[in-house]
Amino acid sequence: MWFTSGMEKPSGEKETGRLEAFSDGVFAIAMTLLVLELKVPHPATVSSRAFSAALAAQWPSYVSFITSFFTVLVMWVHHHVIFRLVKRVDARLLFANGFLLMLVTVVPFPTAAIAEYLKTPAAPAACAFYAGVFFAIAIAFYLLLLAAFRDSMLDPRASHARIARFRRNYRLGPPLYLAALIAAPFSPLLSLGICTALWIFWAATAGEC
Amino acid sequence: MWFTSGMEKPSGEKETGRLEAFSDGVFAIAMTLLVLELKVPHPATVSSRAFSAALAAQWPSYVSFITSFFTVLVMWVHHHVIFRLVKRVDARLLFANGFLLMLVTVVPFPTAAIAEYLKTPAAPAACAFYAGVFFAIAIAFYLLLLAAFRDSMLDPRASHARIARFRRNYRLGPPLYLAALIAAPFSPLLSLGICTALWIFWAATAGEC
Amino acid sequence: MWFTSGMEKPSGEKETGRLEAFSDGVFAIAMTLLVLELKVPHPATVSSRAFSAALAAQWPSYVSFITSFFTVLVMWVHHHVIFRLVKRVDARLLFANGFLLMLVTVVPFPTAAIAEYLKTPAAPAACAFYAGVFFAIAIAFYLLLLAAFRDSMLDPRASHARIARFRRNYRLGPPLYLAALIAAPFSPLLSLGICTALWIFWAATAGEC
Amino acid sequence: MWFTSGMEKPSGEKETGRLEAFSDGVFAIAMTLLVLELKVPHPATVSSRAFSAALAAQWPSYVSFITSFFTVLVMWVHHHVIFRLVKRVDARLLFANGFLLMLVTVVPFPTAAIAEYLKTPAAPAACAFYAGVFFAIAIAFYLLLLAAFRDSMLDPRASHARIARFRRNYRLGPPLYLAALIAAPFSPLLSLGICTALWIFWAATAGEC
Repeated sequence: MWFTSGMEKPSGEKETGRLEAFSDGVFAIAMTLLVLELKVPHPATVSSRAFSAALAAQWPSYVSFITSFFTVLVMWVHHHVIFRLVKRVDARLLFANGFLLMLVTVVPFPTAAIAEYLKTPAAPAACAFYAGVFFAIAIAFYLLLLAAFRDSMLDPRASHARIARFRRNYRLGPPLYLAALIAAPFSPLLSLGICTALWIFWAATAGEC
Repeated sequence: MWFTSGMEKPSGEKETGRLEAFSDGVFAIAMTLLVLELKVPHPATVSSRAFSAALAAQWPSYVSFITSFFTVLVMWVHHHVIFRLVKRVDARLLFANGFLLMLVTVVPFPTAAIAEYLKTPAAPAACAFYAGVFFAIAIAFYLLLLAAFRDSMLDPRASHARIARFRRNYRLGPPLYLAALIAAPFSPLLSLGICTALWIFWAATAGEC
Repeated sequence: MWFTSGMEKPSGEKETGRLEAFSDGVFAIAMTLLVLELKVPHPATVSSRAFSAALAAQWPSYVSFITSFFTVLVMWVHHHVIFRLVKRVDARLLFANGFLLMLVTVVPFPTAAIAEYLKTPAAPAACAFYAGVFFAIAIAFYLLLLAAFRDSMLDPRASHARIARFRRNYRLGPPLYLAALIAAPFSPLLSLGICTALWIFWAATAGEC
Repeated sequence: MWFTSGMEKPSGEKETGRLEAFSDGVFAIAMTLLVLELKVPHPATVSSRAFSAALAAQWPSYVSFITSFFTVLVMWVHHHVIFRLVKRVDARLLFANGFLLMLVTVVPFPTAAIAEYLKTPAAPAACAFYAGVFFAIAIAFYLLLLAAFRDSMLDPRASHARIARFRRNYRLGPPLYLAALIAAPFSPLLSLGICTALWIFWAATAGEC
């Protein structure tokens, strides 16, 4: 508890405000920077037909933008839900959170690789890269949970059943993304399918936890 | 109410702080990134006359910048006004808000298309693209209203007349932007006129609501 | 006071929190985006001497970066000081603040023009552009003051003498920047000198107000 | 104490909220902009082998990204820890903080120079540039400490022993980075080694302070 050793805080006060605000900044910027990938097209002939065709031809960028945005949004919702249960901050939590935030900002990178290479012979490598990044993110979320869900850090009013559900769900992440990573060289689509199924699971369980 | 099921909150406390801070981040960044489009001109001859002429020749960028900025500002004001009436947060509200934020970050993209193509034969497609994006935004605002303006979410002190005015105004959005979208292939200027009139309406009614 | 008409607030509560957070976001991003102009140089020959020379040759970018950063910082300090005196928010204040924020994001643009063209024949136009943007900013600050410093908006504890000092100082801005704008075609250095003197004045009086 | 001279604050209230939020914005954006340097590679032949090789060949970018991210993260943790002890804000603190924030946004620039030039004959200049920037940052942190750790600014509950540890550690920064700067022309690796050892020290002592 070095972090608070210098001053006595009223015991009911939440200390995580600034950590949450800083994390929100990183999430918000990571989501907003995605739009820099979208560009007004400049077709060779300037006509409505050519402009519409050029706009439509950019669909992989749109898929990549929407996927990255919702991926980071789901991660933000989980971050939000976790920190509603936490009251204290220490160095370990700050660094675990920082490691997760670093990976949050990286998300658009493998997503763009998928959008660009899924229909090419490089699909196995692109899918392995994608699954690998989310394997790292699953580990980062689990490390965050280990740092946050200690008795000294939690809000005493947090329900035990809910915390147990969180632990169980987050323990599933690393082995399943590892399976997606191992599957990528053999079947890129299976790898991507596992990752997609997991996103639906995380979106759905954001509420359940 | 899964979101708060884990802990009992004092009944008068507002839960939306972090959602608002995160949304503010996205709005602020979307507005600030616009300025990246403005570049110092490099005329062929370096003279005051040439520099001024080059600066003036960039006027479509300025129109696009100012329009996008105020468009996002009006959307932020509406977001602000809505969330002053809301006290609770649940998964549905988080995802409705996320869908709106995604579209907020997209605003500069169709605006730049209008600035670039309004005086070309591609104007019908550019105006249809613009109206189409704002049709989606009107739907997103309406979905946000449906998620936010439920009895369990609202501040009990919020006035019923005001909430009714919000609902009525926001219901107008989708059909009117749809009309602008349908008008675009026939008359780009009519389409743009409907969209502009609606922005004046949203700016004016931000106060009335 | 439409803004608060829907609900009764305890009279002592500050309403400007979200407006300040949103403004902080715009200021912070405007200041941080400046760094995108700084690039690692790639000299033709790779040696310590060539690298150092290439780094040093970029000095106009550094001047522009430092000037823009402190310009926006001083504006942020003034914004901060103004809003410490304000308790209420209404539509007029939101739009006056939005107009100012738009101009805040523009600051790097004329600053880069000065850095690039001050030693060229285009200096009069570049200085006129610079003075013109800050003339607009001085007007925006004055409009913000008119919107913020009304009896219904101010914190009742704010000192009258201090508010009077603010009004007096902010009234000086527009005519002095207009003088700098008018001087630019005749003497770019005089124009820039007036603007620089004013920045020192704003930095110094941030405390006095 | 001009800053609060206009109004009487309850003596226990913390005034630094907005300063922290603004600083968080700058830190968050500085960290997130780093990711713009990471690009999906476009190998000449599109195969899994070529894509993987191209991805791996970008390793200096990854090292630069991770180093910059953790560097700024450690600086944010220190900023966070300092401001937990501070209760008042004045003009001097605002400007000392602004000077530090300016240098925070610059961090990616020398880090990229190291990543690019460490294995070239320009290594001495690149390492001197890196050590020079962190020499300036060490001075900025010390100036911030001088501005923040005055009796009139500190939370009266802050422990004296902790404040003394902060002072002692921060006094070490400038001379040690100066030594790294002086060592760079003779031994780039020694220079970089001193800087790296200092980062480990700052990360470790974030908790101890």
